[in-house]
Amino acid sequence: MASLRVPDDVPLPSEDCNTLHKAFKGWGTDEKAIIRVLGCRNSWQREKIREAYQQIYNESLIDQLHSELSGDFRKAVILWTYDPPERDARLANKALKSRKKGITQLQVIVEIACATSPHHLVAVRQAYRSLFDCSLEEDITFHVPLPVRKVLVGLVSSYRYDKEVVDSIVAILEADKMREAIETKHLDRDDFLWILSTRNVFQLKATFQYYQQKYGNSIYQDIKSCGKGLLESVLRVVIWCIDAPEKHFAEVIRASVVGLGTDENSLTRAIVSRAEIDMMKIRGEYFNMNKTSLDNAVKEDTSGDYRNFLKTLLGAKI
Amino acid sequence: MASLRVPDDVPLPSEDCNTLHKAFKGWGTDEKAIIRVLGCRNSWQREKIREAYQQIYNESLIDQLHSELSGDFRKAVILWTYDPPERDARLANKALKSRKKGITQLQVIVEIACATSPHHLVAVRQAYRSLFDCSLEEDITFHVPLPVRKVLVGLVSSYRYDKEVVDSIVAILEADKMREAIETKHLDRDDFLWILSTRNVFQLKATFQYYQQKYGNSIYQDIKSCGKGLLESVLRVVIWCIDAPEKHFAEVIRASVVGLGTDENSLTRAIVSRAEIDMMKIRGEYFNMNKTSLDNAVKEDTSGDYRNFLKTLLGAKI
Repeated sequence: MASLRVPDDVPLPSEDCNTLHKAFKGWGTDEKAIIRVLGCRNSWQREKIREAYQQIYNESLIDQLHSELSGDFRKAVILWTYDPPERDARLANKALKSRKKGITQLQVIVEIACATSPHHLVAVRQAYRSLFDCSLEEDITFHVPLPVRKVLVGLVSSYRYDKEVVDSIVAILEADKMREAIETKHLDRDDFLWILSTRNVFQLKATFQYYQQKYGNSIYQDIKSCGKGLLESVLRVVIWCIDAPEKHFAEVIRASVVGLGTDENSLTRAIVSRAEIDMMKIRGEYFNMNKTSLDNAVKEDTSGDYRNFLKTLLGAKI
Repeated sequence: MASLRVPDDVPLPSEDCNTLHKAFKGWGTDEKAIIRVLGCRNSWQREKIREAYQQIYNESLIDQLHSELSGDFRKAVILWTYDPPERDARLANKALKSRKKGITQLQVIVEIACATSPHHLVAVRQAYRSLFDCSLEEDITFHVPLPVRKVLVGLVSSYRYDKEVVDSIVAILEADKMREAIETKHLDRDDFLWILSTRNVFQLKATFQYYQQKYGNSIYQDIKSCGKGLLESVLRVVIWCIDAPEKHFAEVIRASVVGLGTDENSLTRAIVSRAEIDMMKIRGEYFNMNKTSLDNAVKEDTSGDYRNFLKTLLGAKI
């Protein structure tokens, strides 16, 4: 379900490094070559390229990309070239340190906590500690206002069981508990948040399903009707990131291109972080939601090397 | 500061396996040989022995120990032979599944969460998921009554920064926040628990120190004066496990031997889990607290192979 296209015959990391090194050399930079190499390698292959580049040229590939490229293209290529846990730790940090802390920023934390694997989340927390001299939770506690702080601390601290084990009695009981919190509009209740932050994803999906069967509306809709505050917005993102991340990311991409101007940061983040995971599903969901294709949206709202790079990650032939 | 004595010339894992295999063979078991091998190897060496045993004899060393040994000696040797994260995951599970859930049981969770490294805690959570088909937090949420549930979920979810970075302004502010929670006897307040579960250990020690300077009593004493409930007991263990784990474990050992009978489970746990960490400090603290030696206490309250094994972990020459 990834959109990334890796060629059948992948050159050795040292050969890729050679191509990249040549692309950086002399007047101007060969952006096409950079896209051709980095845009068609998976995270493991990019890791090997980063390591080989450091070893062969005694220089950091990331630093080289930083000095050779510019604008949104640079941001996208660098995000893509980072080790995914480091990328997400940096995205989380940027979200927490940004002056504005609305849903556009804070949903980044929810995506990392709820739409990636438990193992990846722990790796992000580890990378965060290495990069920023404190834990991710400490920064959330410091930078995010209540009651959203409580939700995010709980979610990033989770280390969910990752196999498909579902207890339907638990699902029934916990759907009722969630209903109670929603009815009384106490969405920051401990028991409500424990369900969302400790249960495995399969169990939660069963709980959401049972909720809808019993109460008519989906839990997503009912949280929406609780209010339009930041807490409700964050919780809606939580529900989608757990239940159907493709819906959430289709929505992020849509919001980034709709109206005047483009939110390149969100567009880049969504494509870079999902190209290796579920971009094909996101593409399908985008079409269902908007009756227009995600690829067209990217084509219309971007240009130049940035556009070519995103298109490559979306699986376009180069 | 470990008490474990590893000989200068450690045999190859295959040689150790050979000694163990011989010790298991024939009528009776050569317990002394088992103590001489396993009781004098660090966790890395024990891992290699476990692996080699499986490879050479196509049998699990743990299973063999289980069928050859008995009683408290068996429990102690097996706990010691497990990979430490697996050992702690099993100890946590046993504590959570026990019918009684007083401080004697629940302090096991606090020890794992607050008196070990952040990396070890994550490894324990990972082992827990592998062994018991759910997350440690889920089991805490299910088995531990409120308000202690809230404290323990927060603590086991932590992934503290592990380098010595202290912000004294934060320490001053947070000591005041803790004071407020203590004065109003709201020891399960979110902000109070976030301090305890997200801050790095060095930062917390500075906060506790500032608390004592400003308010006269130590935070440990002030929590004690809040009440004698389970919440206060658990929080006292939290403070000691963060501030001076040697005091906590000296106290656990003392409680296990004092009075009629011996609590072998606690005694074994304390010695097995700290022999490679800080047993020399615990021994010193034990003497300061009780004016009698920890080694004597073990000698008087235990016997046979069990005694010999504990004495070996405490560094006795064999």
